[in-house]
Amino acid sequence: MTPQPNPQVGAAVKAADRAHVFHSWSAQELIDPLAVAGAEGSYFWDYDGNRYLDFTSGLVYTNIGYQHPKVVAAIQEQAATMTTFAPAFAVEARSEAARLIAERTPGDLDKIFFTNGGADAVEHATRMARLHTGRPKVLAAYRSYHGGTQQAINLTGDPRRWASDTGTAGVVHFWAPYLYRSRFYAETEQQECERALQHLEDTIVFEGPQTVAAIILETVPGTAGIMIPPPGYLAGVRALCDKYGIVFVLDEVMAGFGRTGEWFAADLFDVVPDLMTFAKGVNSGYVPLGGVAISGQIAETFAKRPYPGGLTYSGHPLACAAAVATINVMAEEGVVEHAANLGAQVIEPGLRAIAERHPSVGEVRGVGMFWALELVKDRETREPLVPYNATGEANAPMAAFGAAAKKNGLWPFINMNRTHVVPPCNVTETEAKEGLAALDAALSVADEHVR
Amino acid sequence: MTPQPNPQVGAAVKAADRAHVFHSWSAQELIDPLAVAGAEGSYFWDYDGNRYLDFTSGLVYTNIGYQHPKVVAAIQEQAATMTTFAPAFAVEARSEAARLIAERTPGDLDKIFFTNGGADAVEHATRMARLHTGRPKVLAAYRSYHGGTQQAINLTGDPRRWASDTGTAGVVHFWAPYLYRSRFYAETEQQECERALQHLEDTIVFEGPQTVAAIILETVPGTAGIMIPPPGYLAGVRALCDKYGIVFVLDEVMAGFGRTGEWFAADLFDVVPDLMTFAKGVNSGYVPLGGVAISGQIAETFAKRPYPGGLTYSGHPLACAAAVATINVMAEEGVVEHAANLGAQVIEPGLRAIAERHPSVGEVRGVGMFWALELVKDRETREPLVPYNATGEANAPMAAFGAAAKKNGLWPFINMNRTHVVPPCNVTETEAKEGLAALDAALSVADEHVR
Ligand SMILES: Cc1ncc(COP(=O)(O)O)c(C=O)c1O
Ligand SMILES: Cc1ncc(COP(=O)(O)O)c(C=O)c1O
Repeated sequence: MTPQPNPQVGAAVKAADRAHVFHSWSAQELIDPLAVAGAEGSYFWDYDGNRYLDFTSGLVYTNIGYQHPKVVAAIQEQAATMTTFAPAFAVEARSEAARLIAERTPGDLDKIFFTNGGADAVEHATRMARLHTGRPKVLAAYRSYHGGTQQAINLTGDPRRWASDTGTAGVVHFWAPYLYRSRFYAETEQQECERALQHLEDTIVFEGPQTVAAIILETVPGTAGIMIPPPGYLAGVRALCDKYGIVFVLDEVMAGFGRTGEWFAADLFDVVPDLMTFAKGVNSGYVPLGGVAISGQIAETFAKRPYPGGLTYSGHPLACAAAVATINVMAEEGVVEHAANLGAQVIEPGLRAIAERHPSVGEVRGVGMFWALELVKDRETREPLVPYNATGEANAPMAAFGAAAKKNGLWPFINMNRTHVVPPCNVTETEAKEGLAALDAALSVADEHVR
Repeated sequence: MTPQPNPQVGAAVKAADRAHVFHSWSAQELIDPLAVAGAEGSYFWDYDGNRYLDFTSGLVYTNIGYQHPKVVAAIQEQAATMTTFAPAFAVEARSEAARLIAERTPGDLDKIFFTNGGADAVEHATRMARLHTGRPKVLAAYRSYHGGTQQAINLTGDPRRWASDTGTAGVVHFWAPYLYRSRFYAETEQQECERALQHLEDTIVFEGPQTVAAIILETVPGTAGIMIPPPGYLAGVRALCDKYGIVFVLDEVMAGFGRTGEWFAADLFDVVPDLMTFAKGVNSGYVPLGGVAISGQIAETFAKRPYPGGLTYSGHPLACAAAVATINVMAEEGVVEHAANLGAQVIEPGLRAIAERHPSVGEVRGVGMFWALELVKDRETREPLVPYNATGEANAPMAAFGAAAKKNGLWPFINMNRTHVVPPCNVTETEAKEGLAALDAALSVADEHVR
């Protein structure tokens, strides 16, 4: 597929965008959105003939890349037969999507409540937990992202919460393990794990266990930095939940559906939550879809008593058909195994070699197709390349790194002082190596800011 | 299109549904979802060969009916070229959808923030209002529905709020006009209007105008009963907002895109809000989509300062392409005008004739393709046919009415003691008359419960 330059159309698309599209998380006049002409597999291109290898998978959701022909065909076929139908009915695509998901979720998470995306999945999961327990509070981690609606953003532990944090009741934040910047004064993963669990139990005890409905955690925190939890941590959280009668919610919106080289990141740790949220990878984002997988015990709470929540497009047939096709494609093509193998055999060694060459790389961490490079001014002090939540001039080193990557044909994922390597889970070895080479070159720009 | 009976497939769809699908607003073991095999235009059918005329438009969203060939084709074409792309970019379908919507929204509501549905549109609209004004409270009406996420459900003024109303800060409810059950002791629309405005101003003054960020109203309250606001009410609310520096939000998720026989219900009243939410009809629900139309003044607030909100699928290309096709179809086929004309010439006289024949009909009200029949035990006292929020035995009269309608091949919209006549906006005259006849027959069952 060769991109056809067509700057005139690009200019029109851009002009209408600037006139009428209000963009997420942005100062509308300070952004300059690239007009994108097309996308296929791991690449996209603009109207000027520039082509980019997408090391972001969109917002970490195109787990099978762009325009997978089987999923496109499934969407077209479903559109021809039943694009939409209201949620109170039984519909083939909806039933089959729920069945395929339930088949893969850990433990007895066998009932699926469908939403439109990740944020509303989190909203409904926390509601279910509160009603199941009759308790008011949800404990969530700093360094997390759970979505943009009011409840989800208040659970979030990053700066995107601040503007909306008008004292929402019933949310308490705690600290999850993060050895590279340990605030538990730990020197080993085991220490970090033990101390983080101690901190969490202290928090539960001092908040009052009988007030805590749920603990929500990203199985592997994503946007916040891909901090793989140390062995034993999630099992320890599971044990605390059991001890205190708390619902354990794992948010797998980003980590689920192959990203970590398992169907769900929970499988990496052999842990079974009571509720699990998903979105993104469930259908590679081809049609908006999210959901909550629900344990038998929690489903039982709403067997005879109505669940007080819903939405017009719950279980949307077109979105569900895309999920059915995506899951089948992932199974047939071994996408999950591919992500695990390519991660271990190409991405990890590639990134470790890059880290050796670049003093700006403080740490490499990740698994599967889910990797973070933490960029620092100084490997000893671990001072971040840019301050927390930096903008404008203060963020210039990361901006310069990003621009260099794009010049090399690589579209990088950047958050604060980190770049994440999160290509589609079916990226080829050749593409992965091409991307690593471009990253390698761009990091020289970051190196200039090392002390 | 003749439905092909296929009970075996139907049974399998139903079995998987019962095993794995968790349904909105339901006690999971007390429901018995009908398995739907197909849908076209104003009809759908099950696997046993039963065909229903859909007087609900799904959940009042298939404004152009099921499977409109032009919109199906547009979805297929967009799927073939660009199913999805991340929100930070300029993309043709997104730009064009925003342009077509902005062209139709009243006043200077020219910037479009896209969401996945109605609830998140309301979440973001109220956030914009709070940040624009720096004030904490939003005033919302009793007898309203604004969506299922935490902020939206707390703004809602019906029983679906109760389970989630854990004392959320910053929401205050007031009473909107409703002459048929006036609590302002009014005898005319004009009195009801004046007194409702007095009540709203009293509420603002006693809450403290400097604490009120927004007033949110459904332009025509939908699920709560299609109460057409009396002449002057919305203009009066607009004037109060101007007087006290309050953001006026109109929720047109249900009332917008042709439902009232205008592109937006606001056009019926010549009123321009500061923010307007939409979803449903924007693309007839063929792909999940919602949004907020934003005035110049509020957009200006976020010109240099980032808007702190977003979502992965904001401006989803497939959803936007469906909106472009839907809006073009509605324009080309005169769907909006058709809704106005058929409403005035067929639905309204038909319903008024029905009301004459059936003592259970207390009031007929509506406009365009947006009509409610309020069923009562007694026309004098106006005692509802079933109590507010009745379930089980107490709700038996409405359940019996619903069953009778279905037996007559009509799928009715029922909420509490009301049935709404909300077919697709392009329902034909013949279909409308068929539906009215079935409704007429079914109301005899309701009549049995009249005193
Ligand atoms: C872990 C996690 N949860 C929730 C969300 C919110 O999902 P959405 O943007 O679809 O609302 C995200 C989005 O990035 C996420 O990464
Ligand atoms: C007026 C109004 N606002 C908001 C919503 C919520 O929309 P959604 O179900 O798409 O979240 C609805 C849904 O019925 C509605 O009627």
